[in-house]
Amino acid sequence: MKAVLLSGFGGVEVLRIGSHADPVPGDGDLLVRVRATALNRADLLQRRGKYPPPKGAPEILGLEMAGEVIEAGQACQGFKKGDRVCALLPGGGYAELAAVPAGMAMRIPENLTFDEGAAIPEAFLTAYQNLFNLGGLVAGATVLVHAGASGVGTAAIQLIREAGAFAIITAGSPGKITRCLELGARAGWDYKEGFFAPWVAEQTEGRGADLILDFVGAPYLEQNLASLAEDGRLIVVGVLGGAVAGRLDLGALLMRRLQIIGTSLRSLRRERKVALTRQFRAFALPRFADGRLKPVIDSVYDWTEVAKAHLRMESNANIGKIVLRVVG
Amino acid sequence: MKAVLLSGFGGVEVLRIGSHADPVPGDGDLLVRVRATALNRADLLQRRGKYPPPKGAPEILGLEMAGEVIEAGQACQGFKKGDRVCALLPGGGYAELAAVPAGMAMRIPENLTFDEGAAIPEAFLTAYQNLFNLGGLVAGATVLVHAGASGVGTAAIQLIREAGAFAIITAGSPGKITRCLELGARAGWDYKEGFFAPWVAEQTEGRGADLILDFVGAPYLEQNLASLAEDGRLIVVGVLGGAVAGRLDLGALLMRRLQIIGTSLRSLRRERKVALTRQFRAFALPRFADGRLKPVIDSVYDWTEVAKAHLRMESNANIGKIVLRVVG
Repeated sequence: MKAVLLSGFGGVEVLRIGSHADPVPGDGDLLVRVRATALNRADLLQRRGKYPPPKGAPEILGLEMAGEVIEAGQACQGFKKGDRVCALLPGGGYAELAAVPAGMAMRIPENLTFDEGAAIPEAFLTAYQNLFNLGGLVAGATVLVHAGASGVGTAAIQLIREAGAFAIITAGSPGKITRCLELGARAGWDYKEGFFAPWVAEQTEGRGADLILDFVGAPYLEQNLASLAEDGRLIVVGVLGGAVAGRLDLGALLMRRLQIIGTSLRSLRRERKVALTRQFRAFALPRFADGRLKPVIDSVYDWTEVAKAHLRMESNANIGKIVLRVVG
Repeated sequence: MKAVLLSGFGGVEVLRIGSHADPVPGDGDLLVRVRATALNRADLLQRRGKYPPPKGAPEILGLEMAGEVIEAGQACQGFKKGDRVCALLPGGGYAELAAVPAGMAMRIPENLTFDEGAAIPEAFLTAYQNLFNLGGLVAGATVLVHAGASGVGTAAIQLIREAGAFAIITAGSPGKITRCLELGARAGWDYKEGFFAPWVAEQTEGRGADLILDFVGAPYLEQNLASLAEDGRLIVVGVLGGAVAGRLDLGALLMRRLQIIGTSLRSLRRERKVALTRQFRAFALPRFADGRLKPVIDSVYDWTEVAKAHLRMESNANIGKIVLRVVG
């Protein structure tokens, strides 16, 4: 098959389309003709050699895909050749073929395209896992979502709205904030205007947020903790601004009963990804089918333009997901 | 009534027995003749002026007590004059009388004395809340309990054993470790022998602990995080060694999916203390009645010797709870 390969590690110049051995599906796997994949921050890190794939994962980039089943293993109940599916992958999405454990496949609702299907798995499963399973989100809660216009951010805003809770978001431009408000966020803060903590206090009448989804890490830690309500949870999904914080006041954590929760979907064992996918399918597929939830797509590139797509993500200009169309 | 009062803040010389207005019970409160109370670290801090009581709480020291009901308000279903009860208090335990919300009272099993009843609430409710409600303890898990010989530590070891899980503990002397092993701990480390992290790795075959109960805070943070298994939770119950840590690697938190959870029983709202007490009663009272759980008492002092009792806790010599007998 053809796939996007890396000629060493570095800038976008190392990306090229070449030949690679086909994946070998097991009894429990679907072999899928990939129609579209989507970008994640991890792809940029992996391209630079800063995020080696976990043991046993394909070296090809791409943590999600949408496509059609061309072969279903004997233990793949409920799926057959021709089914349109999307799924999380441990890697290998930037390719013509992918092997997907049937338990991790989601049927793409008829009203959605492959491009839209490819924009679902990472963003929505990450948001779902963090909001519901780790965050214990309940109706009426206030959630601060950093990077509100990112893939995970735009998914989180919609899931928060569907849960009867309130999203307030930060983003880096007025255009991004407007899009987040359209998706259901109650308020937005342009982080280029200064510290967000006083704004969160104002938005919550001094109470703070019940839950924070953060991708920035160390530079935001102190403000994030100050922005939490009592019993609040800070969920750290990324450390794009730096991993090592120089100060943590455990006394404040104790007195206000705060929690700091680190999480990474990619490092979860397969059984847990399967369980998460099952849970998410039940919640989300009917909502995608009737339009309450929508994959938010920033842009679609043919995979021959993968370098351009990476540059777009590196420029932080995207609102929602950047999709790569895999053209055979 | 008589109560232990503070003449200013400072060393044990500020403690004296004097007169204080009686508590005024509401419809939902029991008025209790206090027979025994027990010491907590918070008492020492409060005596030094470093832990002001929360708003609305009595200024008298004492976060727990055991005694007999002398008056039950109209809304106190299930309790009557003469009942032997113990309970958490927001303060006011070092006194002849205490008003206790009926929902927070626990009947003392017949086989236990008032001294033993007074040794239950803080230690066991703290351990229960942290292990089960915040820690998600399940059978087979390994829990590292620091200060294993403390009131909370000795309670935690027993609850962990009852849950079918495994306690490994740290303590500051061979005598303390021996007592912890008798209570059901699987192994103990004398922290005066050096870093505990390599020992935890050895005890868990390199996997790490699923849960850690910590009272030390900042000086232990790095070792604690290194000692957690994937998806492990560090529960910070105290910061006796210092509150402010100088380094936190959020990247490690994220990759290994670790959680840092701050908690304080005292700051919980009353409704939540009531809910916790209800849950704990169902789990623990039958086990106290048949001897599977035992309050661990280090020593019993008449309340006229309250200064000696405080000095004993300050010397860190105690194994289990230090009880003050309130003699009318």
